[in-house]
Order: sequence, then structure tokens, then C-alpha cells
Amino acid sequence: MTGAGSNPDTAQLLQAGGAHIPSALAAVEQLLAEAGLGSGAILEGHARATISAGGKRLRPLLVLLVAGRPDREATARRLERAAAAVELIHSATLVHDDVLDGAVLRRGQPTVVARGGREMATAAGDLLFARAFALLAEDSDPAPVRTLSEACSGLALGELLQRADAWDPTVTLERYLLRCELKTARLFEAACRLGSGGAGDVDLTGFGRDIGLAFQVLDDVLDVSGPAERTGKQPGTDLLDGTITLPFILARERDAQLAQLDPREITTAAQAQEVCERIAATGALDAARERALGFVHRAQQLLGARAEQLGAERHDALALVADGVVRRYS
Amino acid sequence: MTGAGSNPDTAQLLQAGGAHIPSALAAVEQLLAEAGLGSGAILEGHARATISAGGKRLRPLLVLLVAGRPDREATARRLERAAAAVELIHSATLVHDDVLDGAVLRRGQPTVVARGGREMATAAGDLLFARAFALLAEDSDPAPVRTLSEACSGLALGELLQRADAWDPTVTLERYLLRCELKTARLFEAACRLGSGGAGDVDLTGFGRDIGLAFQVLDDVLDVSGPAERTGKQPGTDLLDGTITLPFILARERDAQLAQLDPREITTAAQAQEVCERIAATGALDAARERALGFVHRAQQLLGARAEQLGAERHDALALVADGVVRRYS
Repeated sequence: MTGAGSNPDTAQLLQAGGAHIPSALAAVEQLLAEAGLGSGAILEGHARATISAGGKRLRPLLVLLVAGRPDREATARRLERAAAAVELIHSATLVHDDVLDGAVLRRGQPTVVARGGREMATAAGDLLFARAFALLAEDSDPAPVRTLSEACSGLALGELLQRADAWDPTVTLERYLLRCELKTARLFEAACRLGSGGAGDVDLTGFGRDIGLAFQVLDDVLDVSGPAERTGKQPGTDLLDGTITLPFILARERDAQLAQLDPREITTAAQAQEVCERIAATGALDAARERALGFVHRAQQLLGARAEQLGAERHDALALVADGVVRRYS
Repeated sequence: MTGAGSNPDTAQLLQAGGAHIPSALAAVEQLLAEAGLGSGAILEGHARATISAGGKRLRPLLVLLVAGRPDREATARRLERAAAAVELIHSATLVHDDVLDGAVLRRGQPTVVARGGREMATAAGDLLFARAFALLAEDSDPAPVRTLSEACSGLALGELLQRADAWDPTVTLERYLLRCELKTARLFEAACRLGSGGAGDVDLTGFGRDIGLAFQVLDDVLDVSGPAERTGKQPGTDLLDGTITLPFILARERDAQLAQLDPREITTAAQAQEVCERIAATGALDAARERALGFVHRAQQLLGARAEQLGAERHDALALVADGVVRRYS
């Protein structure tokens, strides 16, 4: 993944979203950069690197696109702060995830934990959390804080569930989807709610939720389907750390031998690769993709039903976001 | 440390603070217990255990005592939420600290990391952070969110600095005090600010800051002076993980051999014990205690200057808090 500007999908989105979007996104980048200030050289070398390494800025973009063109300067600033806050929360969870996974690279850059150690990375993640809430607290309305703190609870609970479910091959589809909802969809939903509170008067939280679910399911498919040059990591990373995802759940129903496999027996990259191939052979990857497409379809329907209220510009830009989630993985 | 009710100092405080304090503290406990709800059995076994293990509830007590007797039900509820939020932030940092230290026991109970592993504990800490902000967001005033998010930034920065300074014996007194300020004093200060915003109209943040500084310095003295049955840990724990604190900084000025010691050479509990004894022999512990007492004295002066505005009840209760910080370590 590269910076927002260099992604062709993003360029298309920027155009569709309206003339105000590029400058709003630039303002968000500025806020993100400032979030690392006042913390001296240490954070500049750590948390700021995480923020500035980029990513698609999909969540801030959702805030801005759902809101539509703000009619007042004050609204524009408020939306930019909300967009930056969502991205800070996302960055904080990435930093903490990397600590737990001992990950060395993220977006092609050394992770905070690889450069500064676990203590540094845990504190850097905590700092990003705090800065997100500080940004929202500049507002006189406490609702955004409520929205984001609830999403954060969801993120943390999702992680808790994932660790509780680790290595358990009998995890159900429902439980898996609950995890996706908490771990990923809640923050997408929050982004849409934060956007809706502004100039936008359409509640698009269901749209955000479905996009988030699709995003997570497709991410989990990619972990099995590889290849490494696309994903930046070896296939089967989830299997190796005991995370049971949809492809494995569906494949177990189709392959008796997989159903008997104890995930703890998968200890090498070669074994993980072999299990990934076996999962793919069952057709479970296509079935999982279908499910993700189902979420995207539902999101598009929600969008279509609100087309009139949204107006063409907002509708088309959000439809592109939905397409983009699918295309990223196709 | 035991639950709030069983501590004689706390009992005295409860009486001095006014008839409303015990029921307010009970309401805070209820809020803390509820913060773990809705997260199923997992959190009940982890984050809730941390919360319910008690501690002195010193920070919530500061919120309530600074505020004084609330004149309206709504104010009382708001203060209770603020008091619970401060304690949740404190608990979150304890859980994360225990992850980083690999600590097995805290307040005589197994730590979250010991029971659930690092992933679980990191997520549990994040959850407690999020719940703290959710509590404050029930309010229509965004100022408390600002106060607490700024304090959280301070906590995280303090941790970052501590890691950056690790193993460096040339850390200056100023740098050490800055760490104490960020890591500890800011949350005490925030507690007082949260209390001041209510029925209380006296700004007692300087009082909170000084009490916090004294608290941290005395804690660092105790890490050197032991004994283990008082502190629940071996003396020299800080030295063993490279944290350079005031006693060592002062002792280096008094003992040329200590000044030449590379902290990395201290690798066993026996070595740490020996260095602790050497530090004690220089008189550095008394000098460090003196400095802490200086902070308490300044806090008492700030309090005295506002005695009239505060009224006898609030003044006397807060004076007891200041005394309690000293007595805890004497």
C-alpha cells in the first residue's frame, strides 16, 4: 500500500468526491503530522513514522465523503479533525498489533516495535489513542467522542475474542463474523457516523459496517491466497499464529482431513503454505469471496436507497469506495 | 495494597471528606465494575479482575474531594463518572506496564498478562482506555475529555521517555523529574482539574501535580529501600530493567564507584540488592525523600493559600491526602 495520492483508485475517488476533498485530505494529513509534535525526537522517530507511512486513508475518506461538501468553515474543520482522529485510532491499533505479532515490516517500513522495541511501541500506540481523543475534544459536541470510544471498545474486544479463539478450529462462522464486526467493521461504521453528523444528514452507518465486513473477509482470503509479493507477507500468517478465519472454517466443512487438523501442528511456513493450498483446493476461497461480495452488495443497496438524499456526487463517490474494497483484492 | 475500605488512612479520609464521599465512592466502584460488562466472560476474567483488585482509589478520591459536596444530583453523577474514568486510565496503564515488564503479580493478584498472555493484556488495556473516554462522553461538556486525553498523552510520553532513557546512567535530575511529571503527576493533576470543574471553583491542579511528583519519587525510593514484604517486589527492580531513578542519580554524585557503574552490568537480583545497599550507604535515599517532602510541602502551601475558598471540610480532607502520600512510604 502506498500513500493516498499515488493510488489510482484514490485519485478517482478524489475526483468523484468533489473539489473540496483533496484540500480536506491535505488538512487531515497536516493534523496527523501534528499529532506527533510536542513529543520530541522520540515520537518523531516512531509514532510519526507510522502515521506518515501512509496507507489508503480509507477511513478518513469515508468521514469526508459521507459528510459531503461542508457549508461552513467550522464544519469543514470539525470533519477534518474527526477524519484524522479515526486514522489515529486505526494507526494505534496497527502499532499495538505489530507489537503482539512481533511484526518487522508494515507498509514496507520497519515497524515501531522493530525499531524501538515493545515498550516504545506500546507507549506510542497509547499516545496515538490519546491524541485521537484530544482532537475530538476540540469540538463542543461530545457525540464524536462517544462514537469513537465505542468503536475503540469494539476494536479491543475483537482482539480479545481473537486471542480467546486462537488455535480453536471449531470456531463458528457466527463467532468469526462477530470478530470481524468488532475488529474492523465498527471503525468503518464510526467513520460514517462521524461524517453523518455534519452536513450529511443521511445515516450511512450500515453502509460502513458492510464495507468493513467485506474488507476484513477479503483480507483474510488474501492471507490464504497470497502471493507474498501482493500482500507483503507469507501466505498462512494467520494460521501460524492461530487465527482461524473464514477460508479455514469453510474448508473444514468440505475436506474431512482439514477438519481433523489441529492448527497447533502448523509450525513452519512450508506447512502453512501446504495447508493454504489445501484450503484453496476445496473452493473455500471462492465461497469466502462470495460472502464478502454479498456484504458489498448490501452496502450498495443501502446506498442506492438513499441516492436521492445523498445527491449524485456523494452517492457516486461512496459507490466507488465500495467498488474499491472489492477491487483491492481481485 | 487492599481495597479502599480496609485501609485505615482511607477510612480517615472518608470521614474527613464529608458524609457524601462513601456513597460517591461506592457509585464509582459500581461504574468501574460496569466498565467490564458487555464484554463477556473474557473480560470478566481479565480487565475486570484488574479493576476489582482494588488499589487505594487515590485518583478518584482526589476528584471527589477537590469537588466538595455536589449541590445537584447531576453534578454528583458527573463527578462519579469522571472519578471512575481516571481510575480506568490508571488501570489501563498498569495493565500495559505489566505486559512490558512481564509482571506476574499486581496487588497480590496474578496480572492480566500472566493469566491471559500479552495479546489479551494489550487488548484489555486498550479496552479500559476506551471505556474511560466513553464514560466522560456521557457528559455534554467536552472539557473533561480534553483534560483526560492530555493526561493520557503525558502518560504515554512519560513511558516513551523512560524507555529512551533506559540504561543511561547520565540521565539528569531535570530529565528524571520531567518523566515523573509526565508519567505520574499529570494524572493526579487531571484528577484535580476534573474535580475543580464541578461544584469546586478552586483550581487545585498545582496541588495534584505536587502530590503526584512526591508519590513517584517516594515510589522510586521504595524500590531501592525495600523490603520486599512491604513493596511486594524485590528491591532494585528498576535497576534491573534499566530505569534510572532519583536515588541512583543522587548516589552517583556521592560515590565515585557508583558513578562509573554501567547499569547493564546489573543482571541478577543479588547484584541489584548490592547496588541498592551501596546507594543507601551514600545517604541518597534520605536526600530523595527530602525532595519528595518538599513537593508535599509545596502542595500543602497551595492548599493553605486556598483554605478559605475551600472551606474546612475540603481543606482538611485534601491535607490528609497529602499526609497519606508521605505516610504510605514512611
